[in-house]
Amino acid sequence: MSALAMAILLNGMGREEVARWTAAMIASGERMDFSTLSRPTADKHSTGGVGDKITLPLAPLVAACGVAVPQLSGRGLGHTGGTLDKLESVPGWRAALSTEEMLAQLEDVGAVVCAAGDGLAPADKKLYALRDVTGTVEAIPLIASSIMSKKIAEGTGSLVLDVKVGTGAFMKQVDAARELAGTMVDLGRDAGVRTVALLTDMSTPLGLTAGNALEVRESVEVLAGGGPADVVELTVALAREMLAGAGREDVDPADVLGSGRAMDTWRAMLRAQDGDPEAPLPTARETHVVAAPASGTLTRLDAMAVGLAAWRLGAGRARKEDPVQAGAGVEWHARPGDAVREGEPLLTLHTDEPERFERALASLEGGYDVVPDGGPAYVPAPLVIDRVG
Amino acid sequence: MSALAMAILLNGMGREEVARWTAAMIASGERMDFSTLSRPTADKHSTGGVGDKITLPLAPLVAACGVAVPQLSGRGLGHTGGTLDKLESVPGWRAALSTEEMLAQLEDVGAVVCAAGDGLAPADKKLYALRDVTGTVEAIPLIASSIMSKKIAEGTGSLVLDVKVGTGAFMKQVDAARELAGTMVDLGRDAGVRTVALLTDMSTPLGLTAGNALEVRESVEVLAGGGPADVVELTVALAREMLAGAGREDVDPADVLGSGRAMDTWRAMLRAQDGDPEAPLPTARETHVVAAPASGTLTRLDAMAVGLAAWRLGAGRARKEDPVQAGAGVEWHARPGDAVREGEPLLTLHTDEPERFERALASLEGGYDVVPDGGPAYVPAPLVIDRVG
Repeated sequence: MSALAMAILLNGMGREEVARWTAAMIASGERMDFSTLSRPTADKHSTGGVGDKITLPLAPLVAACGVAVPQLSGRGLGHTGGTLDKLESVPGWRAALSTEEMLAQLEDVGAVVCAAGDGLAPADKKLYALRDVTGTVEAIPLIASSIMSKKIAEGTGSLVLDVKVGTGAFMKQVDAARELAGTMVDLGRDAGVRTVALLTDMSTPLGLTAGNALEVRESVEVLAGGGPADVVELTVALAREMLAGAGREDVDPADVLGSGRAMDTWRAMLRAQDGDPEAPLPTARETHVVAAPASGTLTRLDAMAVGLAAWRLGAGRARKEDPVQAGAGVEWHARPGDAVREGEPLLTLHTDEPERFERALASLEGGYDVVPDGGPAYVPAPLVIDRVG
Repeated sequence: MSALAMAILLNGMGREEVARWTAAMIASGERMDFSTLSRPTADKHSTGGVGDKITLPLAPLVAACGVAVPQLSGRGLGHTGGTLDKLESVPGWRAALSTEEMLAQLEDVGAVVCAAGDGLAPADKKLYALRDVTGTVEAIPLIASSIMSKKIAEGTGSLVLDVKVGTGAFMKQVDAARELAGTMVDLGRDAGVRTVALLTDMSTPLGLTAGNALEVRESVEVLAGGGPADVVELTVALAREMLAGAGREDVDPADVLGSGRAMDTWRAMLRAQDGDPEAPLPTARETHVVAAPASGTLTRLDAMAVGLAAWRLGAGRARKEDPVQAGAGVEWHARPGDAVREGEPLLTLHTDEPERFERALASLEGGYDVVPDGGPAYVPAPLVIDRVG
C-alpha cells in the first residue's frame, strides 16, 4: 500500500480509477442512511483554513431553511482548528452521539454537528497513517477519496465543498485546488451525491478571530445578524449552494439569517447535545496586544502566520491526544483594506500560559504588512475564487 | 522503504544518489579484503540468462592466466539457472566455504566459486523482499545497486559485467540494458573497482544445453578445447576483459584454453571443494525428443521458451526452498543458422519425472522457427552487442 500510494502521488489516477478506489474505501466500513428523514439532506466540507468557523453559523442557518444538515466533524491537528474543538468550548456540549441520537436530532432540530464514528470508511484511517510516514499526503486522488469516501458513506443527498486556496490552506495554488475540487465533484456525482465545490481564499484568515471560544463568539455574532462581512458572505454563499443541492432554491438564506430563526436553531442544536447557549464562553487567563507598527492601511495578514500563532497559543494540538485550550487564540482588529493607526492594537493574543506568547509572536513576524498613507492602493481579492460543478 | 522504492522506480536516481544508496547498502554489512593475495583479483557478474554456464569455464581459465577469481554465486530462481546449482551436480562438491577456506583456495588454486555469505550487504536481501511484493524489482538504480553493493563489498579489484539483453534476459530491450550497464560501471568506478560491461545477446540461449549437469558437461567440453562456438567466444571475450582489468593484457586466454591449463585449474577447483572431476555426472531418468517440423534452417530458438522448459523439467525452482534435479534440462541439436532435417531430433528434454514433459513441451510451442530451403536467408546477430566503460 505504501508503494501504491507513492505511485498514485507520482502518476495520479484516472477518473475511473479514483472512483473505484473510493468505492473500495467506502466498502471497508458501514454506510449511513438518511432516507427516513422528512427533509432532504445537505452537507458541507471544508478542506481546512484558519479562522474557518463557517460550519457553526451555516449548519443552523441551512436547517432553519428546512434542509437537514448532518455534519460529521473532526478535531483540529496542526494550524487549522477543528469544529468539534470549537463547539466543545460551549459549556456542557458533547460531540459523541449515537446514530439514533443523531437521526432524532436531525428530525427534531434539523442540524447536528457531532464526531464521525470509526465505522465510516475505516480504511481511510489506516491509509492516512501510511501516507503520513511515506510523504504521500499530498496526492490529490488520495485527498479526494479520503474526503469523499466518508461523505458518500455518510449518506448525504447533496454536498458542498469549500476548497481553500492560499498560504493558510493545504492547497497553496489555485490550479491544484481546482484539480482537487474537480476530482471530488466527479466522485460525488458518480456516486449519486449532488456535489459542487467553491474555491475560496485562504491567504487571509476568515473573520476576526482564530481560536475555539473566540470563533464561537464570532459565530454567534453572525447568527445575531452582525459579525465580520467575509464570514457572513461565505456562510450565505455556502448556504445557497446547499439549499440548491437540496432542491430549496426558493429560500433566501440571507433573509433567514436576518429573521433570527437561524439563532433559534443554533440554540436548539446546542441544547440537544447538552450545551448551554446562555452560559458565558471561556476566556483565556492572559492576553498580549500587538500594536500596529505604522499608520496607514493593513494590506496583508497571512493566514498561516495567524494559524500558527493560534496553534502555539494553545488553540490547536500537535498530536491527536493533546488537549486544547478553549480560550486561546488570536484576534485581529483590522482586516486587509482597513485603516490602522500606529501604536493602536492590531492583534490580541489569548492564552492560559503566558510562556506561549514568545513563540506565537515569532510566528507572526513578517505575517502582516501596513502600507503608509499615500502608498500603493490596496486591491481587494475575491473571497469566492471559483465554482466547480 | 516500499514508497521510496516506488519513487525510485518511477523517477529514477541521479548518479550521486545511486552511489550514496549503494554505499549505504555496503555499510549495512561486512567487507571482504583480497589485498593479502599474491595475485590481482577479477570477478565477473552476469545478469542471468538461459544456458549461461560461462562462469564454469571462465573462472578456471582466468585463474590459469594468473589472476585470482573470487566468484561468489547464487542459486537459480525462475527460468535462469544458478551457478551453484550447476556445480552441485558434480558429485561431492560443496558450495559453502569459510572466508579462510576461500582465501586459501584463491591463493592455491586461483579460482573459487562458492556461496555468498549473508554478511555482504544484508540490506539488499530485505530490500529485495520489499521490491518483490511492491512491483519495483525492475527499477534500474535498484538492480544496479543490488548487484554492485555485493560486488564492491566483496572487495574485487576489477569486475566485468555481462549484461544480458533479449527475450530470455531480465532486460528485454537494449536501451534499458545499456542504462543498467552504464549505472553499474559508474558505481564500480566511483568505488574504485575497475569495471566494464559487455551487453550480450540473450534472445537465443547460450551453447547447446540448459540444465545443471548438462551445462557442466558442456563447460568441460569447452575446457577441453571443444564445445559450442558461442560459449567459447563469450568465455574468451569475458576473460580478456577480466585480464585487462587485472593488468594482464599480455596473456591471451585463447592460448591458455588451448593449452589444457584451464582444465587443470578446473579439476583443482572442484577437488578443493570436495568435488570429484572424474566421477560421472548425473543424468535424468527420462528423455523426450522433439523432431524438427520441416527441413531447412533453424532461424530462431527463443531463450525464454527454452529456459521455461528447462525450469518445468526440474532444472530450476519456483521457490527458493525447492530442490532442483541435477540431470534435468533441455538439449538442442541445432543453433540458429544451422540446417535441420524434418523428423530428425531438434531438442531433447531430460527429467526424472516424465509427467513434466507436457508442460515443458507447451512452453516450447512457438519457441522456434524452421525456414524451408529457399526461404529468406538467416542473418546472424552478434553475440557481443556493445561494450560499456
